[in-house]
Amino acid sequence: MKALTFDGVGKVKVVDKDKPKLELPNQAVLKLVRTTICGSDLHILQGHVPTVEQGRTLGHEGIGVVEEVGAEVKNFKKGDRVLIACITSCATCSFCKKSLYDACKTGGWRLGHLHDGTQAEYILMPYADSCLYPIPEGADERSLLVYSDILPTGLEVGVLRGHVTPGCTVAIVGAGPVGLAAAICAQLYSPGAIVFFDKDEFRLEVAKKVGATECYKASDAKEAREVSKKWFSDKDGFDVVIEAVGVPETFLMCQELVGIGGNIANVGVHGTKVDLHIDKLWPRSTTISMALVSSHTIPMLLDLMKAGKLDTSPLITHDFKFDEIEKAYDVFGRAAETKALKVNIEFD
Amino acid sequence: MKALTFDGVGKVKVVDKDKPKLELPNQAVLKLVRTTICGSDLHILQGHVPTVEQGRTLGHEGIGVVEEVGAEVKNFKKGDRVLIACITSCATCSFCKKSLYDACKTGGWRLGHLHDGTQAEYILMPYADSCLYPIPEGADERSLLVYSDILPTGLEVGVLRGHVTPGCTVAIVGAGPVGLAAAICAQLYSPGAIVFFDKDEFRLEVAKKVGATECYKASDAKEAREVSKKWFSDKDGFDVVIEAVGVPETFLMCQELVGIGGNIANVGVHGTKVDLHIDKLWPRSTTISMALVSSHTIPMLLDLMKAGKLDTSPLITHDFKFDEIEKAYDVFGRAAETKALKVNIEFD
Amino acid sequence: MKALTFDGVGKVKVVDKDKPKLELPNQAVLKLVRTTICGSDLHILQGHVPTVEQGRTLGHEGIGVVEEVGAEVKNFKKGDRVLIACITSCATCSFCKKSLYDACKTGGWRLGHLHDGTQAEYILMPYADSCLYPIPEGADERSLLVYSDILPTGLEVGVLRGHVTPGCTVAIVGAGPVGLAAAICAQLYSPGAIVFFDKDEFRLEVAKKVGATECYKASDAKEAREVSKKWFSDKDGFDVVIEAVGVPETFLMCQELVGIGGNIANVGVHGTKVDLHIDKLWPRSTTISMALVSSHTIPMLLDLMKAGKLDTSPLITHDFKFDEIEKAYDVFGRAAETKALKVNIEFD
Amino acid sequence: MKALTFDGVGKVKVVDKDKPKLELPNQAVLKLVRTTICGSDLHILQGHVPTVEQGRTLGHEGIGVVEEVGAEVKNFKKGDRVLIACITSCATCSFCKKSLYDACKTGGWRLGHLHDGTQAEYILMPYADSCLYPIPEGADERSLLVYSDILPTGLEVGVLRGHVTPGCTVAIVGAGPVGLAAAICAQLYSPGAIVFFDKDEFRLEVAKKVGATECYKASDAKEAREVSKKWFSDKDGFDVVIEAVGVPETFLMCQELVGIGGNIANVGVHGTKVDLHIDKLWPRSTTISMALVSSHTIPMLLDLMKAGKLDTSPLITHDFKFDEIEKAYDVFGRAAETKALKVNIEFD
Repeated sequence: MKALTFDGVGKVKVVDKDKPKLELPNQAVLKLVRTTICGSDLHILQGHVPTVEQGRTLGHEGIGVVEEVGAEVKNFKKGDRVLIACITSCATCSFCKKSLYDACKTGGWRLGHLHDGTQAEYILMPYADSCLYPIPEGADERSLLVYSDILPTGLEVGVLRGHVTPGCTVAIVGAGPVGLAAAICAQLYSPGAIVFFDKDEFRLEVAKKVGATECYKASDAKEAREVSKKWFSDKDGFDVVIEAVGVPETFLMCQELVGIGGNIANVGVHGTKVDLHIDKLWPRSTTISMALVSSHTIPMLLDLMKAGKLDTSPLITHDFKFDEIEKAYDVFGRAAETKALKVNIEFD
Repeated sequence: MKALTFDGVGKVKVVDKDKPKLELPNQAVLKLVRTTICGSDLHILQGHVPTVEQGRTLGHEGIGVVEEVGAEVKNFKKGDRVLIACITSCATCSFCKKSLYDACKTGGWRLGHLHDGTQAEYILMPYADSCLYPIPEGADERSLLVYSDILPTGLEVGVLRGHVTPGCTVAIVGAGPVGLAAAICAQLYSPGAIVFFDKDEFRLEVAKKVGATECYKASDAKEAREVSKKWFSDKDGFDVVIEAVGVPETFLMCQELVGIGGNIANVGVHGTKVDLHIDKLWPRSTTISMALVSSHTIPMLLDLMKAGKLDTSPLITHDFKFDEIEKAYDVFGRAAETKALKVNIEFD
Repeated sequence: MKALTFDGVGKVKVVDKDKPKLELPNQAVLKLVRTTICGSDLHILQGHVPTVEQGRTLGHEGIGVVEEVGAEVKNFKKGDRVLIACITSCATCSFCKKSLYDACKTGGWRLGHLHDGTQAEYILMPYADSCLYPIPEGADERSLLVYSDILPTGLEVGVLRGHVTPGCTVAIVGAGPVGLAAAICAQLYSPGAIVFFDKDEFRLEVAKKVGATECYKASDAKEAREVSKKWFSDKDGFDVVIEAVGVPETFLMCQELVGIGGNIANVGVHGTKVDLHIDKLWPRSTTISMALVSSHTIPMLLDLMKAGKLDTSPLITHDFKFDEIEKAYDVFGRAAETKALKVNIEFD
Repeated sequence: MKALTFDGVGKVKVVDKDKPKLELPNQAVLKLVRTTICGSDLHILQGHVPTVEQGRTLGHEGIGVVEEVGAEVKNFKKGDRVLIACITSCATCSFCKKSLYDACKTGGWRLGHLHDGTQAEYILMPYADSCLYPIPEGADERSLLVYSDILPTGLEVGVLRGHVTPGCTVAIVGAGPVGLAAAICAQLYSPGAIVFFDKDEFRLEVAKKVGATECYKASDAKEAREVSKKWFSDKDGFDVVIEAVGVPETFLMCQELVGIGGNIANVGVHGTKVDLHIDKLWPRSTTISMALVSSHTIPMLLDLMKAGKLDTSPLITHDFKFDEIEKAYDVFGRAAETKALKVNIEFD
């Protein structure tokens, strides 16, 4: 079978690999139907994730068809169409029992990292009963691609940890795929306003399409505070601020935007420490949360999709066949120019 | 009447002032029975609180007897013995209605700050119905002095925002009065362990007395992590870490001590920004909270005291008469030498 | 001034009364702009509320203009347009401090009950700072009439106590004004389905208009269960069941409809005991809640209205001038025939 | 091996059965060390649980040593001493993922019900990774017997669903093993008072030993209300009322005892419907919960035991060898005379 692998810093390569075989009775072998590329895949390429070995098949998102299941698998059978969770969970360790799948003792982020991933024709799924979800009949599977990772990330790490509630004001710093996913999920709780901050006009246009109340092209923390004051109310800032970039400047911007009694929910992947202006924030009853996605909300998101409450189609900007995946990497990697958000990569 | 006032940086002075008179129907005039000194009073002396004018009567903690009430006051009458909340709340603004009394639009920290405080023979209490609490019959009023500020601070900012739960592990960095108060309140939720970190041996001894499971004389963040590993379990750290000092080094220590899925509850009053190692903490599902006390938990604390569930007597280390208050300031200000925690200052 | 009063069982009478005057500094006198009639007013007429004296001005809902405020009132001034909360709260008693305004020691349901109400040209409002809310500029005041009582009732007693969450299934038994209000508020939390049960076709049509996913004309508990099985999923029932009628048969219907791990939120006003099939429900992890409205969510509802997230206009079915209020009572009292939900009664 | 089996209504019989063998890779075979008898076992004998077949080995509580594990079992190995959860959970179905193990699609109450139980020398444990817990070193295993069922029942169904909080007042109706277990667990949250109601003096004595603040020998609902008024405070009743009997009269008593804003947590196993005085309770903001134990809190309870926070030894009143198990049934079945609470049955 064909697989897209990490070939050392800056390089990916499509190679031939053996089709995987069941090794344990809790596993399943899937034939991929669609996959996509994540910002984390680019981090790997940049050499920022040293735990990824050369030759590893990348990818932790996708949709597949069950080809074969182990003797222990009771929730799925050959032929089922399934969504693949980006996080692997054993379901029985102390972390999984508390829905912290990302900290699973024998799971966590494994696909396309420590275990061959979804950018290949077949994948061996560990803990199949726990990490796969049946695809609802009639679903638009192209839009469903974002349910593997960025939609639960936006919901769990942005919206739930940020405590979005009806009528509250939400600022989202960064209108990339995850910030946009957070905006879609925030609307499940009917905030009074969702206000975006980004430098990229195209992304702010998409933000409008997915429900932003207002968008600001601001790059400086103080400026962001100045331009958005009309949303502050008596709390002198926003109720919830979602950081969806991952650099010190945007984290600073969040500190300028958060109001009294407000929460900063950090979704961005940070590579360095940041300044925390605790001397200014502590008298304002502020909470800051940060986490990796667990993916335990996928069942709820699928229920909402079935009920017609979620439209993620604006997040998919490009389509490729799997034999064009190297081109897809190129397009996704030059997002500012290509206006790529998420790419849909289809298998034959 | 006599009042202890701020007399410019580094100086307090006892002066004669007019006994206060009712100005609004929601107020009460109290005759003080006991008062005490807070770390914030020392901050004022050091010139760190520029909003305090010279001549201001200091103090935001105390116990008094109602001398006179305004026409609107319905919960109290002349002769009632009352506990004074350190925070003033109007009860009807949008913040008060959400129990964020510290952000009250016409209240917040006013006593001994923007309004003459409790280190005087009489005080004019604004919003009496909302800011005073009846003293339970038979109460040990000396121990009750800490219910004005540090006990609700430990509970609200440390224990509740830190989400102490039965069986969890709690690290407290700093065994000063507020850290100790947090330890007393943490036990209301039956943690599996309360582990203290401080440099001061006397304070660690008191920590043992108020329920610490173990105490470490550690001053360096990495060292604190090393010595306390036996409490880490599979979470690689503590469930709840309470910062009760307020300097960058101790905030760093908290980051070293917090476990996967854990919370840092900052109680310390910080004067500068700190480093946040978000690159290390974000994949560990961490939450950081910081707040000023609201004091809305005083009724619950009084119920617990009546039920015999709280013993705060070890927190009171020294006793003075009000005419010795300048000496009390001196003793409290040299706590490392004098082994002072909270001082009880009695009026005649 | 003119006032609609209770004139003994079955009778209302418009009488002349003196315009009220301020008696306490926390009060305000309002000139009414609009009022409406509630199901509770009909209960009074039927003689079911013996605490209402003959001659009492009825009504606990309405919109007014501030005519005069007492010395203590700081949130309002003459000329302000205000929404009147149906529940009176002192803001400082132990219940008010926990947002249980309905249990306020000197408040609760007083207007049009123990204190002259809103079906009059003027009203004396106790605790004005706590019980009035500023009307947002540009608001459709006719639609706002339901914010005094039935909208917060639907939200607090139905949606919040029922724990509506994104993607869950909600059954509402009874499509009267409060059931419909609950449906409007439930949508703030994006349930997967809102399914109504009622016997009245007109009301079910309105239910569709305010967002019902499906409506069943069912009157028998077992039948309701049979016809709605397609919504049950693996929980064998609905996640949330809201009782909005108040008779034994509908409460029984709720027990047939609630799923495993589900909640019954009782909003209906019951006059007798009911059967609880605890032998069947206990192994299904069921919660049953019941409460009077507190009205503490009015600020949140007003924020949502300003943000365009709430349309309550379908709930207002008839318009009257205040001098037609007796006719309005007649129309509202024969709702099955007249298709009345809420009536808008305007003052000159 | 020897096993105690159900032999038709009113009869148990010790029989010889084959030692169980692994059938699926997620299972384990355990050699029992201790077991006990539950009120549910008596219900089975009385013929109230028709799903139990004649010949079924009874028992769903116990401590064992792992004899053999299937290929999938990763948390346990031969020789490990383990606590057996009374509820079987697959860990991956939609209910288990929400910690509702009692509703597990292929689990729930199976042991000693639909699957041979723990009153035998060996047991075949399904889903071993999910349903067994390692016994902490040095534990008093005799006291640990109650961790299989009644301690998590008291905690989950009584304390957590009843929302016991620091300083609140708790009434427990019924001082049998589960009511007493609820009292032990309630203390984890530091209530201001735990007040028991029962007819049996011996049981009330034990209640005192496990931490009851006061005990009343009351059997009538109105009388219970009368005698306990001193605990009512301004809420006119208790904050939390735990029903631990399971008959209409005791459920009625709970309704008389619950205060404004309070919760009734039903732990009792009811065989018939009860009267719910909703006409009296709805204006008092009351919640009623009812559930089967899930057992998901066992890890937390074991952490607390290790920390020395739980003493369950007073709940074990009698000791037997396994070859005396029929006598143990007799003693446990005549609890009023024999003063039996839980019996410890040891294997050789």
